[in-house]
Amino acid sequence: MEPCFLTAAEAAAHIRDGKLTSEALIRSCLARIEARDPRVKAWLYVNKAQAIAAARELDKRAPMGPLHGLPFGVKDMIDTADMPTTYNSPVFQDYRPARDAACVGVARRSGAVILGKTDTLEFAAAGRRAATRNPKNFAHTPGGSSSGSGAAVGDRQVQLAFGTQTGGSHIRPASFNGIYGLKPTWGAVSREGAKQYANSLDTIGWYGRSVADLTLVATAFRLDDAGALGAPAVSSLKVAWCKSPSWHKIEPAGEKALEAACARLAKAGATLVELTLPPAFDGLFEAQNTIMMAEGRASFLDVALEFGDRLHADFHERVTNALGITPEQLIAAYNLAADCRRAFEALYADFDVVLTPASPGEAPEGTYNTGNHIFNAIWTLLHVPCLGIPCTTGPMGLPVGIQIVAPRYGDARLLALGEALAPVIDMETPLYRADA
Amino acid sequence: MEPCFLTAAEAAAHIRDGKLTSEALIRSCLARIEARDPRVKAWLYVNKAQAIAAARELDKRAPMGPLHGLPFGVKDMIDTADMPTTYNSPVFQDYRPARDAACVGVARRSGAVILGKTDTLEFAAAGRRAATRNPKNFAHTPGGSSSGSGAAVGDRQVQLAFGTQTGGSHIRPASFNGIYGLKPTWGAVSREGAKQYANSLDTIGWYGRSVADLTLVATAFRLDDAGALGAPAVSSLKVAWCKSPSWHKIEPAGEKALEAACARLAKAGATLVELTLPPAFDGLFEAQNTIMMAEGRASFLDVALEFGDRLHADFHERVTNALGITPEQLIAAYNLAADCRRAFEALYADFDVVLTPASPGEAPEGTYNTGNHIFNAIWTLLHVPCLGIPCTTGPMGLPVGIQIVAPRYGDARLLALGEALAPVIDMETPLYRADA
Repeated sequence: MEPCFLTAAEAAAHIRDGKLTSEALIRSCLARIEARDPRVKAWLYVNKAQAIAAARELDKRAPMGPLHGLPFGVKDMIDTADMPTTYNSPVFQDYRPARDAACVGVARRSGAVILGKTDTLEFAAAGRRAATRNPKNFAHTPGGSSSGSGAAVGDRQVQLAFGTQTGGSHIRPASFNGIYGLKPTWGAVSREGAKQYANSLDTIGWYGRSVADLTLVATAFRLDDAGALGAPAVSSLKVAWCKSPSWHKIEPAGEKALEAACARLAKAGATLVELTLPPAFDGLFEAQNTIMMAEGRASFLDVALEFGDRLHADFHERVTNALGITPEQLIAAYNLAADCRRAFEALYADFDVVLTPASPGEAPEGTYNTGNHIFNAIWTLLHVPCLGIPCTTGPMGLPVGIQIVAPRYGDARLLALGEALAPVIDMETPLYRADA
Repeated sequence: MEPCFLTAAEAAAHIRDGKLTSEALIRSCLARIEARDPRVKAWLYVNKAQAIAAARELDKRAPMGPLHGLPFGVKDMIDTADMPTTYNSPVFQDYRPARDAACVGVARRSGAVILGKTDTLEFAAAGRRAATRNPKNFAHTPGGSSSGSGAAVGDRQVQLAFGTQTGGSHIRPASFNGIYGLKPTWGAVSREGAKQYANSLDTIGWYGRSVADLTLVATAFRLDDAGALGAPAVSSLKVAWCKSPSWHKIEPAGEKALEAACARLAKAGATLVELTLPPAFDGLFEAQNTIMMAEGRASFLDVALEFGDRLHADFHERVTNALGITPEQLIAAYNLAADCRRAFEALYADFDVVLTPASPGEAPEGTYNTGNHIFNAIWTLLHVPCLGIPCTTGPMGLPVGIQIVAPRYGDARLLALGEALAPVIDMETPLYRADA
């Protein structure tokens, strides 16, 4: 099998055992990119020679960390010192940061080989769209704003990639590309060197092709006890499935995915209970939008002043508060979020994990509309870790995932639960499996 | 009078009226720096030629914004594209960011002339101390971590400067240097390009020598309605003076400052009421420390991996969670903060503004200990805007300020209140007044 088809955890084990070199792995991924990316368009920049040179150096030395020799894609709203960083903005085409973003630095010093930068919605917020297409059907979006990272991992061009989530930019593309994604607890991973959209929402996450892949990266980021907790027995688990307050937006394929996940888990011996969120949670989706838009004022002021008319009108609308959000509305949104964070964690006394949709259904057609974040935004606002797991294939032949959710700073526990639940939930996406 | 002794608002008016050039103002500040800074040690870097050239360009063109032609100092934990940025860290001595931090970009594009970078505690967090001395008595600290910015504005070397506050790093130096300082609402000013310590606490602020100075900068940052609200009549105001839960740490000079402020306001016709914060607020100081230390884990992981033993042990302690803070403790701290934010704002139905100590008393002796942030940390955690106002002179001849505090996103209202209250409160620091 071509090394690019291995999961990150499998490739790491092969490298550790001397069965695979980082160079061979990187060359395999680069060949896959060369073959596929002219149509998928996941990457804005790839530096082959640099990646191969880095892999060769890693092959000569003792393991640097949990990501030793593994390829990594970086969403191009995250700074890299040795590659252009454009934020997919026309006004940043020549930008070359002097320093890696904190997350890129951690990945590199844990042994990762950065292959390049992946396409994104401009500033991961608005304005210019990514050109990336869904590798399963080029007429469809891979989701956004982490479009390129999701598609590249889904298309087996790279094992691991960074995405970010302010509304639903990380977990939704995981669903649309049939891959695994972790959006950690807000604040657990430094955002230094990533373009800011909404201060109290932006979260850096990563994609992989198995829960073990995600755990490798979580170990590099020192998420408490990541990898140290064993996977519990599925039959010992009480899973709370949750339609969320946005169920009116579910599509048949999304409904089927949630039902399938529940049925498979029940068959494997898990206890399933329905979780209906308290009425206060009904306001969270609007609160997330209020906070995102209002916080965009401060985030885009400097570029609005610097670039004037050259900057997309979407960002000027944020800066001028075109929606007319009042301080009172913003504070009410913050207070509601705080109340619901506390309430959500209190609910956990009654079950082990929440299972809920990761997207309304399959990826929509076209690349302008990257899909609805309505099943993601409330969890982003709650600051809780979310783990996207592939689940079913919809009527258009595209993947549909679900997500599991844990309390804040329960990232390691969530990964351990995912290790147990994913083999039961993820049974229909063989094209994305290493053994395909 | 030498232009360096003008307040920023006075200088701006003179420039607008054609009575003063930016070049003359900048040259006056640079001369003051040359004369004084070998002893004060506020600056890590000054670029005279560049500042003069920038001023000359501004003198030739139409006003760029509210800060047109005014000199500005930048705390050296904030990135500048045309000057070194060291974070006062031995491991960043050669760092040259490719881009201005967002706040520096906004200041420049509002017409400010950046004179240079001011000394700070390493990463504004721990490790190496600033060398800066209190310009009023070189045997004493100017406070920290915004040591250089506070001292430079206090010593009339520059009219305006950026500081930052995670615990009490901005308002405490304002008190110790007899100057004005605004710590805006958390989130109202982008921190992009400022070194991160604690994600949910770090706030960029600025110093000036009058409330009008602070309002000029607030206008540049588009803080809602800044400068548009008129100063209310003092006799119409109900001022809630608050010992805060940390009153056991007050020193005689700090107590005297609060008493003097109350007495002066009462004499001017304001209604004074005592505010005793609810018991829940007693836990805020410890909660702030828990959050600051816990969030430092993510913030310093990349530099810990990059620099290893070359990095100060203080930062490795954060990364390894040497205090053993549990997720449960961290979440409890977040929840307490959220509860108190809401409770604090509800209290405002009964008065117009809170008046409370800005520091325990005068600046302590030495430069290692920059003073206690116990009268600042709870307000930082509450995310509320704080305005530092000079008030009295203590027994050692050093200034002691107080602060006024408003609800979140009440920055413009706080500045308008400050415009009314400051002339009444600030009556004892003539050495720092423009007319001295």
